[in-house]
Amino acid sequence: MEQKEKRVDAETLLSFVKQVFKRLGVPEEDAGVTADVLVQADLRGIESHGVARISRYVDRIRQNEIEAKPKIRVLAETPSTLLIDGGNGLGQVVGAYAMRRCIEKARASGACFASVRNSNHFGIAGYYSMMALKNYMIGISMTNAWRLVTPTYGRKAMFGTNPISIAVPAEGRMPFVLDMATSVVPIGKIEVCERRGEKVPLGWGADKDGIPTTDPSAIRTGGFLMPLGGTAENAGYKGYGLAVMVDILSGVLSGAAYGPFVGAPDSEEPCNIGHFFGAIRIDAFRPEEDFCRDMDHLITVLNEAPKAAGQTRIYVAGEKEFEMESKLRAEGIPLHPKVYSTLEKLAKELEVPLKIDIGTASVKRR
Amino acid sequence: MEQKEKRVDAETLLSFVKQVFKRLGVPEEDAGVTADVLVQADLRGIESHGVARISRYVDRIRQNEIEAKPKIRVLAETPSTLLIDGGNGLGQVVGAYAMRRCIEKARASGACFASVRNSNHFGIAGYYSMMALKNYMIGISMTNAWRLVTPTYGRKAMFGTNPISIAVPAEGRMPFVLDMATSVVPIGKIEVCERRGEKVPLGWGADKDGIPTTDPSAIRTGGFLMPLGGTAENAGYKGYGLAVMVDILSGVLSGAAYGPFVGAPDSEEPCNIGHFFGAIRIDAFRPEEDFCRDMDHLITVLNEAPKAAGQTRIYVAGEKEFEMESKLRAEGIPLHPKVYSTLEKLAKELEVPLKIDIGTASVKRR
Repeated sequence: MEQKEKRVDAETLLSFVKQVFKRLGVPEEDAGVTADVLVQADLRGIESHGVARISRYVDRIRQNEIEAKPKIRVLAETPSTLLIDGGNGLGQVVGAYAMRRCIEKARASGACFASVRNSNHFGIAGYYSMMALKNYMIGISMTNAWRLVTPTYGRKAMFGTNPISIAVPAEGRMPFVLDMATSVVPIGKIEVCERRGEKVPLGWGADKDGIPTTDPSAIRTGGFLMPLGGTAENAGYKGYGLAVMVDILSGVLSGAAYGPFVGAPDSEEPCNIGHFFGAIRIDAFRPEEDFCRDMDHLITVLNEAPKAAGQTRIYVAGEKEFEMESKLRAEGIPLHPKVYSTLEKLAKELEVPLKIDIGTASVKRR
Repeated sequence: MEQKEKRVDAETLLSFVKQVFKRLGVPEEDAGVTADVLVQADLRGIESHGVARISRYVDRIRQNEIEAKPKIRVLAETPSTLLIDGGNGLGQVVGAYAMRRCIEKARASGACFASVRNSNHFGIAGYYSMMALKNYMIGISMTNAWRLVTPTYGRKAMFGTNPISIAVPAEGRMPFVLDMATSVVPIGKIEVCERRGEKVPLGWGADKDGIPTTDPSAIRTGGFLMPLGGTAENAGYKGYGLAVMVDILSGVLSGAAYGPFVGAPDSEEPCNIGHFFGAIRIDAFRPEEDFCRDMDHLITVLNEAPKAAGQTRIYVAGEKEFEMESKLRAEGIPLHPKVYSTLEKLAKELEVPLKIDIGTASVKRR
């Protein structure tokens, strides 16, 4: 379905979002990082995690459910590990801090991993893993989240869509950036099918009895998302296992909440979300140029592999997103009318000038 | 289908397999490790990676395609990383060495990761990750492998079933042990359905044109396995991304072969398989007892979650395998008649006494 949408260039949107957070008492640099994570999501075509989500963060700061000026503390440290307390700050602020520290420590010790407690929704996992790229490191990023997914053979949401991201530098080619929820699909995809009156493929979700269903309403109302793989027959227990792995590294290892105990986005209590980050120095293993040459080769070989009947292209993780970013940097980021009104409302309430309407265009979303 | 099978106790089988490798010139300790990895696979119910596979290793050693006495070397080292050349030794010997070194170094630096080149098929990934458990560490293990799996939208096998394993200690409960191929199923499951004249679920594999099919013969003959998730609609590109991640960490980072260039099991050339291992000290983050208490709690909460209609149990990764091990340690390991003849043949050729027939039993396999 195409819709008339407003378009805004990335820098203008970034500046507006940053001002919003500054008005809420978030320090300059932290406001900048938070805005950057949100706008990056839009640029990469992951609108569900972009500025469309801004109200959730704004509301929680206003209601003192998220600290605008968190006290982030390192609670324990070895040459290659960090335990961090996020002080109930914005997940973006806490995440960027933790990843920055991992990168610094990996420089000295080869690799470093951080497990983080007492944080909040951090946006796209890929933002943090990609921070490693310009340092010629492999970046890793994970987080647990509010429960939406049922374990295989269950009929209750016991964990979140717990994403895994890994970013790996290349040279002539774009970096390899995997950024995936461990559920088959996010809840947003179910909602889209429901609105359109379409069935969903079997394996995306289960109804209130835990039975896999193609009815999006049955999934949305009392039902659950299913882990990657879908049904048990199609190895959904592997996606379930990966989701629990993320929960252990992010939640149990840090002492954050885990499984069904992660706080709801609308709860008055802190969410106590946990994250896990890692940075691994390439040149601790091989000269950067040798590694990057092989990465370019592997990516090219995959791209050029014979295509299935009717297909014209084989993608490598991250390619679609980099292409989207390059397109949207040139054409501007399309804003859904609903998202635009949210921003307008915030602009009025917080007295931040909103000069982001640079025209309208008919934009087909991915 | 039930079949009359011979049963053997684990210790007897271990001793026989160890003798076989010793006769081939493998040093005492290395022969012990190799036998242990193979018998552990049988005990855990993963027969495809157990003694049923012994001939492949034996033949390659006899044909000088695998080194019986490899020169394993550390090529590069930082406080938390290791680059290891496996000297074309048995994957089990190289894998156990690399994981042992990771554990030693993690003791000093908090965490350590090893990328390994010039190795061979190492059996079950879970063996190495579980080595970390008794040290109160989280263990990680991955390997690339001979190509069997097509990328999403492809029609050529470009990478192996590239498994990921992570093992996490608990206290009152069994440890969490995820050990999963990044394909939906192993090739063995396709073969079983073909023999039985059954269709396979859509998503397990594709035919020679890369079109998902339910016909096991079309998958086996010129077709391919599909990555976890299955079709693109069901997010098979995520399994594809995970498989490439394993290939990067095991193959590209170490300088081993990667993607479609990993050597075939029947090639006269070295396979140059790559592995990736990691060990993370729990007490670098939290006191072991706090962590293990929370692990017990998470596992219990998942086990006790409400069950889907018609289901009686929710498993946590590793539970099925630990239960199988405990059962087979008590009852003996069932050996398929074909596997038994292989062992008999080896016993004669290598003059190793085979006294493993402790009776026959009708055994229902998982």
